[in-house]
Amino acid sequence: MQRHFDDELKALKEKILRMGAMVEEQITHAIQGLVDRNTDLARQVIANDPRVNAMDVEIDEDCLRLIALHQPMARDLRFLTTAMKISTELERMSDLAENVSERTLELNEEPQLKPYIDIPRMAEHVQRMVKESLDSFVNQNSDLARKVCSDDDIIDRLNHQIFRELLSFMIEDPHSTTRAIRISFISKYLERIADHATNIAELVVYLVEGKIIRHTTVLPPQ
Amino acid sequence: MQRHFDDELKALKEKILRMGAMVEEQITHAIQGLVDRNTDLARQVIANDPRVNAMDVEIDEDCLRLIALHQPMARDLRFLTTAMKISTELERMSDLAENVSERTLELNEEPQLKPYIDIPRMAEHVQRMVKESLDSFVNQNSDLARKVCSDDDIIDRLNHQIFRELLSFMIEDPHSTTRAIRISFISKYLERIADHATNIAELVVYLVEGKIIRHTTVLPPQ
Repeated sequence: MQRHFDDELKALKEKILRMGAMVEEQITHAIQGLVDRNTDLARQVIANDPRVNAMDVEIDEDCLRLIALHQPMARDLRFLTTAMKISTELERMSDLAENVSERTLELNEEPQLKPYIDIPRMAEHVQRMVKESLDSFVNQNSDLARKVCSDDDIIDRLNHQIFRELLSFMIEDPHSTTRAIRISFISKYLERIADHATNIAELVVYLVEGKIIRHTTVLPPQ
Repeated sequence: MQRHFDDELKALKEKILRMGAMVEEQITHAIQGLVDRNTDLARQVIANDPRVNAMDVEIDEDCLRLIALHQPMARDLRFLTTAMKISTELERMSDLAENVSERTLELNEEPQLKPYIDIPRMAEHVQRMVKESLDSFVNQNSDLARKVCSDDDIIDRLNHQIFRELLSFMIEDPHSTTRAIRISFISKYLERIADHATNIAELVVYLVEGKIIRHTTVLPPQ
């Protein structure tokens, strides 16, 4: 029974990583659609979101089934309830990638305000956070999870910097306001994806170390 | 054992309602702090957020303990894992109330752009959604939950309307841009609180009816 349970846990981890890879691809395509002004790719991101949603439901059901069937104690139980929370975080990231593509469709109907340089750079950081948060979960690596939490500050700073630059555009040329606001939304969506990666990382620290760092602002490196 | 379990479930429901009441109060105070330009009240909202966070952790631990101790099957198990998800949604609402107060502190340092009329109206709708989503959970009332889901459209429309009005302010008078953007953020935070209430309501429909309406766009009244 335990061996069977271990196999099922392994399959669950793999499924979460597959869902993570889908979400990473959604983010990549959403940013590529924006930078290349590729409306077809933006539409594809929107069309693909239900596949990610289906994975969320599937992982949820898998976890419930494993809890009901194997009645795991302590650590394994916490692992499964954490997995349920993580799939919710991933699903919300995909929603935000969809939001990026929705704004892209609007932006592509007007002339480009300026070349996108900071947004793709920010997206790269965000992608790495997503990947590392999931790696930290499947490998139960709380050091890597803590790194993800502290990287969140970089993203907050980038978002703030992008926002200030767009604000100066709006103040100088009110005709740029609508476009500048749409771009600032995209920067905000990326920041929120990073927040979800941080949520995952905080759950992992709790899972591995039993320490709650959710809801705390100071993260000593330990 | 079952009787004891039922008592514990009842206590858990009460705790979730208490957490919900705290979150509702946080939202009320955040909006009051904005409308009355009451900086002390805004600071109080920010200072109170850790109390809501502590409730989230407590409810999570309660649910894990109940699952480990009573090894409930099917419906009760799903109720407990749903309760864990609901407390996360509530905690995020409190974070957003805190964000409202952070923007209020910034806005209170400058002259008022215009009297706040639409924002408090929107907040009232949002508060009702929060309350009804929790009522639908503790009473397992999927009709009420479906009402919450469809009310979300009202909030999206209000947010859109507030945003368009603020945009016209920005375009007419670029000096109003920073303040107008801060107010549009507040409207967006309220919209996100409503999204969290909708998440709760969707979880309730699934819990009660076994139907997944998470991730679906169309919600037939049934």
